[in-house]
Amino acid sequence: MQLFIGNKNYSSWSLRAWYLMSKFNIKFAEQQLVLDTPEFYKTLKNSFAVQKVPALIDGDLQVWDSLAICEYINDAYLSQAAWPKNIVQRATARSLSAEMHSSFMALRNEMPMNIRATRKVELSDAAKKDITRIDDIFSQQQRIYPNAWLFGEFSIADAMYVPIVLRLKTYQISLSEPAMRYCEQVLNCPILQLWITQALRETDIVESDEAGVAVS
Amino acid sequence: MQLFIGNKNYSSWSLRAWYLMSKFNIKFAEQQLVLDTPEFYKTLKNSFAVQKVPALIDGDLQVWDSLAICEYINDAYLSQAAWPKNIVQRATARSLSAEMHSSFMALRNEMPMNIRATRKVELSDAAKKDITRIDDIFSQQQRIYPNAWLFGEFSIADAMYVPIVLRLKTYQISLSEPAMRYCEQVLNCPILQLWITQALRETDIVESDEAGVAVS
Repeated sequence: MQLFIGNKNYSSWSLRAWYLMSKFNIKFAEQQLVLDTPEFYKTLKNSFAVQKVPALIDGDLQVWDSLAICEYINDAYLSQAAWPKNIVQRATARSLSAEMHSSFMALRNEMPMNIRATRKVELSDAAKKDITRIDDIFSQQQRIYPNAWLFGEFSIADAMYVPIVLRLKTYQISLSEPAMRYCEQVLNCPILQLWITQALRETDIVESDEAGVAVS
Repeated sequence: MQLFIGNKNYSSWSLRAWYLMSKFNIKFAEQQLVLDTPEFYKTLKNSFAVQKVPALIDGDLQVWDSLAICEYINDAYLSQAAWPKNIVQRATARSLSAEMHSSFMALRNEMPMNIRATRKVELSDAAKKDITRIDDIFSQQQRIYPNAWLFGEFSIADAMYVPIVLRLKTYQISLSEPAMRYCEQVLNCPILQLWITQALRETDIVESDEAGVAVS
């Protein structure tokens, strides 16, 4: 099984699929491509209908889009263990994951994932509203599952929100105490630390993802 | 079970959830709200964390986002019948559905769903590229399943793409012959015809969704 990903410093959607598969000890060959290079498009065009990462090859099957990859791994390799067992919690986890997948546009545009940077950024009202919503999600789930993942056990919902935690760190944004507790737990995860270490070694620059003013 | 939806003329995400549930004969009370009115926000705020439609209430459970609603209905009421049985087809159907959920931004912005209108619109290159991709998806699936739904039997993937078919009609855009065959089949579906009939009776206008030049 091959997982195609972009730069670890910048590619937040790649991280979601990589993190889910790595947390569940799924064996895969990592195929890293530098975002927006001719080789990136050429390599993806050879195997996929859509030239975006993450993208997965498993035998004859191509799966694209982070959420579809997570659902496929859950379905084919994890006997459904990547979602909460309880149907009510599972529906809520899928709602939160779909919300991440289609929303938070202002936050995503104004605070691109940029792991090695420390920045300050002027946020629009829309981005501030996105952050308030993130705070609500994290703190509400911490009230239900203190010092644990969003739904107690690790699930696809955590994989979907992990790049948000990294963005809050880059742009030095504090949330309420329970929400910060969730962020801390995510940042302490050894598997995420591995991704971060590899991101810090990268030197390629994607100009469009370099937002904000550097903080020394 | 209550499904909250917006204007039938405009609310493409509402249509996706409504169509999936209606096609599978799921019983629900339809709660229609006029988009962007104070009552719209007030009503949703009383029950949901997110003030968007579609949104579903089932007993104590709230489910929001069209894709999460479709997955919940599949999970709770349909014994997984809303996705293809075969795991390879299911992964492809989920990839296409996730692609619809997070992409096609140019097409969605320049060709808002507006069922009762007939329009001409000048499209950007990005929107034209979106239409080419739609043509590829529809015609490729028609080659595999001629004169049938995207994966032979009706699935969530068809519900995700139904508003695209309506947009192509409004803005008078032709696709290749196999792709048009798929569009025709969708438009002939009696359950979709019911939604269209109800949309045609609506009189509220959402200015931001009125794109293009009227064609007499």
